[in-house]
Amino acid sequence: MSIITIVGSGVMGSAMCWPARDNGHEVRLVGTHLDREIIDAAKKTGEHIKLKRRLPDGVLCYQIEELETALSGADLVIGGVSSFGARWFEENVLPKIADGTPVLSVTKGLEAQEDGTLLPFPVAMAKRMPAGRNVVLNAIGGPCLCYELCDHHHTTIAFCGPDMELLKKLRDMLETEFYHVCLSTDIAGVECAVAMKNGFALGVALAIGQKEAAGVENLNPESALFGEATRETLRLIRLMGGEEESICYFAGDLYVTVYAGRSRRLGELLGRGLDIDEARERLNGVTLESAAVDVTVAAALRRMAEDGRANPDDFPLLQHIDELLSQHAKLNIPWEKMARNA
Amino acid sequence: MSIITIVGSGVMGSAMCWPARDNGHEVRLVGTHLDREIIDAAKKTGEHIKLKRRLPDGVLCYQIEELETALSGADLVIGGVSSFGARWFEENVLPKIADGTPVLSVTKGLEAQEDGTLLPFPVAMAKRMPAGRNVVLNAIGGPCLCYELCDHHHTTIAFCGPDMELLKKLRDMLETEFYHVCLSTDIAGVECAVAMKNGFALGVALAIGQKEAAGVENLNPESALFGEATRETLRLIRLMGGEEESICYFAGDLYVTVYAGRSRRLGELLGRGLDIDEARERLNGVTLESAAVDVTVAAALRRMAEDGRANPDDFPLLQHIDELLSQHAKLNIPWEKMARNA
Repeated sequence: MSIITIVGSGVMGSAMCWPARDNGHEVRLVGTHLDREIIDAAKKTGEHIKLKRRLPDGVLCYQIEELETALSGADLVIGGVSSFGARWFEENVLPKIADGTPVLSVTKGLEAQEDGTLLPFPVAMAKRMPAGRNVVLNAIGGPCLCYELCDHHHTTIAFCGPDMELLKKLRDMLETEFYHVCLSTDIAGVECAVAMKNGFALGVALAIGQKEAAGVENLNPESALFGEATRETLRLIRLMGGEEESICYFAGDLYVTVYAGRSRRLGELLGRGLDIDEARERLNGVTLESAAVDVTVAAALRRMAEDGRANPDDFPLLQHIDELLSQHAKLNIPWEKMARNA
Repeated sequence: MSIITIVGSGVMGSAMCWPARDNGHEVRLVGTHLDREIIDAAKKTGEHIKLKRRLPDGVLCYQIEELETALSGADLVIGGVSSFGARWFEENVLPKIADGTPVLSVTKGLEAQEDGTLLPFPVAMAKRMPAGRNVVLNAIGGPCLCYELCDHHHTTIAFCGPDMELLKKLRDMLETEFYHVCLSTDIAGVECAVAMKNGFALGVALAIGQKEAAGVENLNPESALFGEATRETLRLIRLMGGEEESICYFAGDLYVTVYAGRSRRLGELLGRGLDIDEARERLNGVTLESAAVDVTVAAALRRMAEDGRANPDDFPLLQHIDELLSQHAKLNIPWEKMARNA
């Protein structure tokens, strides 16, 4: 039995309590400053108010002020924050993690460097880590609706990180009869897939919003965008030096994300012809990782294009999504350009 | 304006009348011996009884006995038969096509050679063509529900063939404001994707049938199978010497095929726990290309494994589908094996 400390008690981070407790580990769930109510309620009643489920028996809950206590003696730290909390996690949690303790993160996103180079969060953070620090950063990719993880539906995801032997240890700690774990040292490929499935779920949903607005039933347009999203993500994986096979994590994850989730909702509204400001208003300020990653990656591609490291024409769908998000462009799916650049 | 003769007046072949007529070509639609009623009705009323739509004005309809007449002077022949009609097309239509006339086929499937080698139909047929014959065989891949093609919904597919200059001519003949054509000389990759999206739509639907039988709502299991289907198809594309980027045609096509179509239906029934015989009975003898391609490819992989050209362990989902189809196996999705072999 090990001690697993989860930092960030939103729905995805907290859902990791289930496979962790199913394996009999001591599980410590730490809320961030944004999770205060979640932890208060959990301490009082054992209920997770966002997951609307009773946490597994034995999960210990902590407020952020108790972080050091929760981290002491931990064998594994699970990073449970969203991409918007990545920097906060790096600055406020990472330094407090003892050398030799691995981190496994559910955070999805890509970080653009000054020169436009795109790095997965674990790689970008590792580069900034003080010399001599020994905290290996790993991440989770692949399709996983958190509620289904809690309810023991079969779920297959990937743990990625730099050290296969460590990845095997992490799998041994967390896999269950229902939580199936693939392993990959292709951090760039897996994390690119993870980040872009949010970004492109928005893109595929443009066609869904369009048919809803037109009051017609069809599937050819959204399946064409699904294929284009796969093509552009495969190109981005190559650009990031990842392995092409990691596109498999993208395809399954895009499928479920197009069905469910907020990323789809914004795309639907833009597909119905709403301006980005109207769409954001409808979603009343819900933070959207999908929009953030699209804008980040599109800008990075423009920067890389300046010295010929990327060709934005290889990404016509992503470019148009960025125009919708950043420039109030009118919806105009680039059908011909996508086919010509296939 | 050119003359385009479509041989095979099932739903997909006949749907090609729309982009062909939208481009102003003379379109001749020839029914096979199985299509007699369709052609009779079309000649009388102009209606296509299977598509339940009025054929575009000017489409000329022919019974199979009038094949020579319909082929005379044709600039392009579109092969509209299903994979079960491929051999018939090769033996009865191909020999009657004049040298210099290209063929563009909607037929989906792979052909296993004696030694287990898998070839796309156009390649297998070209190999058997008499020396000196000059009939270039091309094919269409990618997501396209035929009804939507008739109704002018945006559709993006790929024409594949050995000669890029010819492919460009074919695109010029058929692309429209709604019918968007990608071009690829990767016949192996595109045709493998096209064939396996049918085969694996059955596989993904196993999880759909399972949740229906259990009366639960979930998406993680089917999205995991969607990812595994993508992985196994990518491996098969490599095995066939295709290009990895052609997996993009698979992903978009699997998405729409899982939503709609008969391939999904058989998988659902097997997912509900029915034996293959019970399932076939429920579908009362509807011919299923998906089951045929799964059995063909699984057998070919076993044959290739004999001399080390393939490793069946790289295809755990396909293997289990084959067990369900060929050996009356009980449903037992190989979750752990899939994750271990990722």
